[in-house]
Amino acid sequence: MPEPTLPKALAFDVFGTVVDWRTSVTRESAVFLERIGQDPGTAAAFADAWRRQYIAAMIGMKKSGRAFVPLDVLHREMLEATLREWSVDPGRIDEALLADWNRAWHRLDPWPDAVAGLTRLKTRFPIVTLSNGNVALLVAMARHGGLPWDAILGAEVSGAYKPDPRAYLRTAELLGIAPGELSLVAAHHGDLAAARACGLLTAYVDRPDEYGGAPAPDADYIQTWEWSATSLTDLADQLGC
Amino acid sequence: MPEPTLPKALAFDVFGTVVDWRTSVTRESAVFLERIGQDPGTAAAFADAWRRQYIAAMIGMKKSGRAFVPLDVLHREMLEATLREWSVDPGRIDEALLADWNRAWHRLDPWPDAVAGLTRLKTRFPIVTLSNGNVALLVAMARHGGLPWDAILGAEVSGAYKPDPRAYLRTAELLGIAPGELSLVAAHHGDLAAARACGLLTAYVDRPDEYGGAPAPDADYIQTWEWSATSLTDLADQLGC
Repeated sequence: MPEPTLPKALAFDVFGTVVDWRTSVTRESAVFLERIGQDPGTAAAFADAWRRQYIAAMIGMKKSGRAFVPLDVLHREMLEATLREWSVDPGRIDEALLADWNRAWHRLDPWPDAVAGLTRLKTRFPIVTLSNGNVALLVAMARHGGLPWDAILGAEVSGAYKPDPRAYLRTAELLGIAPGELSLVAAHHGDLAAARACGLLTAYVDRPDEYGGAPAPDADYIQTWEWSATSLTDLADQLGC
Repeated sequence: MPEPTLPKALAFDVFGTVVDWRTSVTRESAVFLERIGQDPGTAAAFADAWRRQYIAAMIGMKKSGRAFVPLDVLHREMLEATLREWSVDPGRIDEALLADWNRAWHRLDPWPDAVAGLTRLKTRFPIVTLSNGNVALLVAMARHGGLPWDAILGAEVSGAYKPDPRAYLRTAELLGIAPGELSLVAAHHGDLAAARACGLLTAYVDRPDEYGGAPAPDADYIQTWEWSATSLTDLADQLGC
């Protein structure tokens, strides 16, 4: 197989690809569950339930016809729905506590290779987010974890959530390049498949621990991607950075 | 006078405030003018003429009713108009040369205090662009000059050019804060006046050399701003960074 042409820029999925949402949300949820008198031992299940709602919502967003709202707003609705699954009435919980719990997504820790990998990749390529996270969330997360983004792009500045094609195409447009000159970097086959359908290049990063060892939900979309790496530092090696 | 409340984030005008557009565009235009057989000694006048068109266009943009187009496109139109002022037919010039000349705005050098000042301010505040430059231009410029932005916001992701209120208000909205929690940092009184009219805090940075020593065109808008600094490092001092 011939070597694929190098991209002019790299756009990154963030939740799961760059940061380990499950460990961070579990750790924070254990504290908050305890503060509201619930069993902190259910925190990992709580994080998984919260995230499951997110995945369903993103896939259904375009069909829903709902106007674009920032992910912070959706995360809050999903937090309240998850609390109801735990038989907790969110209306009886202190507003400041709920707001702080929701901002757990602003404080996700990077995977151990992420900062080193991004720093190396940035020497050769502009590196931007192509995430469903809103700008405020991603700015806070970058400052928390030291992620050296060149720009915060993706759903909110595109007005559409992945896998809606507008999110991928608008990111390339804002960078002033053709879709085929941009590579998505993601740990999710479904995301990469949607990017490829828009003409983007694709780089897969394996994150076997994203779901705590449970299988990822998007095996149906597995294809041969232009690049396949075990970490962001491995991707930097492959891209000559 | 009581001390103003500190902002939650800082949004920066870029051309003239963070980078010295005149020195850079003059230096590059001298090379390009020589390549097309024109007198490189007119390069500073050429840079001033190009920039004068920009200022007039931004002020007239909202009234014009023209749909939003990235600044790279407007800069190119203005380059061609400026060439015609120099009695040069842009249609007779090599396309690659024109495109490269237009990208002089992607390669502007920072003022000597800018990187140090931004780096210090970033330790305490999220720092974002609130510029009329498009995303691709500002990303290239940041990589050229080492500007450590947290996010590239402003006209293009707001769909409106300053001084249109939407540019200021959308920047605060994307940061998840109220207009009064955001401070514009700018060397231009007109820009600061428009920001204040939207409820933003305002920080003036004096750049007496922006126009090569000629007076700035917006003295009519001079007011007392919340902060007034002689450089970005001086602003960092004043904001306790």
